[in-house]
Amino acid sequence: MEQIRLGIIGIGNMGNGHFHNVMEGKVPSARVTAVCDIDPAKKDRIREYPEVRFFENVDELLASGCIDAALIAVPHYDHPAIAMKCFAKGIHVMTEKPAGVYAKQVREMNEAADRAGVRFGIMFNQRTNPIYARAREIVQSGALGELKRMVWIITNWYRTQAYYDSGTWRATWSGEGGGVLLNQAPHNLDLWQWICGMPKRVRAFCSFGKYHRIDVEDDVTIYGEYENGATAVFITTTGEAPGTNRLEISGDRGKIVVEHGKLCFWKLAEPERSFCFTSTEGFKTPDTSYEEFAAEAPDGHPEVLEAFARSILYGEPMIADGREGIRSLSISNAAYLSAWTDDWAEIPTDEELFCKYLEQQCANETQKKE
Amino acid sequence: MEQIRLGIIGIGNMGNGHFHNVMEGKVPSARVTAVCDIDPAKKDRIREYPEVRFFENVDELLASGCIDAALIAVPHYDHPAIAMKCFAKGIHVMTEKPAGVYAKQVREMNEAADRAGVRFGIMFNQRTNPIYARAREIVQSGALGELKRMVWIITNWYRTQAYYDSGTWRATWSGEGGGVLLNQAPHNLDLWQWICGMPKRVRAFCSFGKYHRIDVEDDVTIYGEYENGATAVFITTTGEAPGTNRLEISGDRGKIVVEHGKLCFWKLAEPERSFCFTSTEGFKTPDTSYEEFAAEAPDGHPEVLEAFARSILYGEPMIADGREGIRSLSISNAAYLSAWTDDWAEIPTDEELFCKYLEQQCANETQKKE
Repeated sequence: MEQIRLGIIGIGNMGNGHFHNVMEGKVPSARVTAVCDIDPAKKDRIREYPEVRFFENVDELLASGCIDAALIAVPHYDHPAIAMKCFAKGIHVMTEKPAGVYAKQVREMNEAADRAGVRFGIMFNQRTNPIYARAREIVQSGALGELKRMVWIITNWYRTQAYYDSGTWRATWSGEGGGVLLNQAPHNLDLWQWICGMPKRVRAFCSFGKYHRIDVEDDVTIYGEYENGATAVFITTTGEAPGTNRLEISGDRGKIVVEHGKLCFWKLAEPERSFCFTSTEGFKTPDTSYEEFAAEAPDGHPEVLEAFARSILYGEPMIADGREGIRSLSISNAAYLSAWTDDWAEIPTDEELFCKYLEQQCANETQKKE
Repeated sequence: MEQIRLGIIGIGNMGNGHFHNVMEGKVPSARVTAVCDIDPAKKDRIREYPEVRFFENVDELLASGCIDAALIAVPHYDHPAIAMKCFAKGIHVMTEKPAGVYAKQVREMNEAADRAGVRFGIMFNQRTNPIYARAREIVQSGALGELKRMVWIITNWYRTQAYYDSGTWRATWSGEGGGVLLNQAPHNLDLWQWICGMPKRVRAFCSFGKYHRIDVEDDVTIYGEYENGATAVFITTTGEAPGTNRLEISGDRGKIVVEHGKLCFWKLAEPERSFCFTSTEGFKTPDTSYEEFAAEAPDGHPEVLEAFARSILYGEPMIADGREGIRSLSISNAAYLSAWTDDWAEIPTDEELFCKYLEQQCANETQKKE
């Protein structure tokens, strides 16, 4: 069977997970031919696999000719720069989320991807969850009617201080570029925009180091507004236990709620907007039918990688185009900017202003670890 | 058995409901001796009860000597003025919610109540719901630990245009003083503060006439902050079907969720704040035990009135002291001010500024009827 030759760049926690998924045959259309990490000690992680080459230097890996595609699993800031190096060599790219730290670099990366004409994917593995796929289908097909409101309480990203202390770059502005919005919540921010589309502006409230000894945010409430007047609330934190993961979306034709591995769909017999103005009774509500859909959430990482490999081999569709990574990042960039300026932030954000503020955060960092 | 002599001022929808509750014996410690309404045609509503006197004029009612206590169920603006007339005559007062339209008049009413030394209650009948009482007990006893977050999605106040068209004063700034925050949500705003205490500032987003031909708000998102850093989100509307009523409160010792007539309580074996800094594992969460509590929601109106009557007769406690009506009103006043100024609003609000803006809304009203 045909296989792409994959290079994994960065073999930390995530990279190592992907490596083993491929080695264990969970991604049939790919084989790992090389691993690259700036830390030579990491070579130990592939010692049982003599067929896999180890590089300490990305340029040497890309010049070696031994890979068709690269999976980028290095710290966030470096995603765009390394992706662009790959594009320049005609190498396909799968990047870990987030696409980068600020929209400007990600926009440049996307432009480079367009010029290169290679496959570019991003590891939004939660898109493989059938429940979110169903939610998207209901919203995007119009079955829910015009969007009125989205509320996502996604507070089950609990982390202890030990987590934050486990890496010097973790939860620093200079090393990671943010907190829960950049590290944990990008999946949910992506699903938000994937299911409901992009809000046009946000007003966000971020608490920095509220629950941990960190400088970045660990508690966030985002209020968003859509072009059509629909509103959104997105609440996330790493400081609550037990957390909640409950997504509610209301539209002109009903409501869906995703919680506890189940999608509940209340469907109106008549669109609310017409009912409102034709009903002669003040307290009546439209008739409602109910259906639900339950499904197990798959791991998703191997699925995303397999679809990526097959898109290279056979032109099949990917789970998430890398260029779409800018969307969730635009929401989180806007949320930071709104919190920093204590004001509304439009989407897309003012890229220069965002970078100016981000530099300030890096300069003022108190928990910086060498 | 002893009974107070009750006068009902305003025999519209609510007043009529209270009247029949008493006449049907649901409030054993009270009997209605008089009804007052500026509309003489309303006399028809008491025609089967010759023992009940009818007044068109409040002053005449209060001078008649035939009542010990008054239940005020007139339009919102007039609650404080009529209450103060009662206080001046030494007559006990039960007022419908909201306490008034703006905090300034309600503060003056409260001061008058203090001077009068009579009983003063407010019709927060949802406080009689055993589930909310349990929620309050869990929070106020400290069983939930220090408060971290409250999120209330209370979007099941659906109303059609026919509802708004049913009265000329309905949903007008000059007649009612507001929309969903003043008419439907005061119960929930009261329960919010009753269970969790008062936030110190809010940033609110109100949409005016979004779903109906009205000038007042019918869609609201309030973000609030507490002195200790806890946050709150309160979402309400009359424009969504089917709506949601889900209250979630997180604290240092767990989480409660109230929905579908049930209170779910997840209790941590160890406070999160200590677990966070003692756990040596990054991804672990504290152990949790679970309990739930279900109960039927009573009507509550007769219970509130009976407790009021017994507080007059025997000095027993009321369900809700009228002076507490200023709290939910302070939250809604702050929400309006925040929306009008597109800025934060502190609690208590700037009373003069609020009145200035409210006058503007009244002056600019477009849907004013006759």
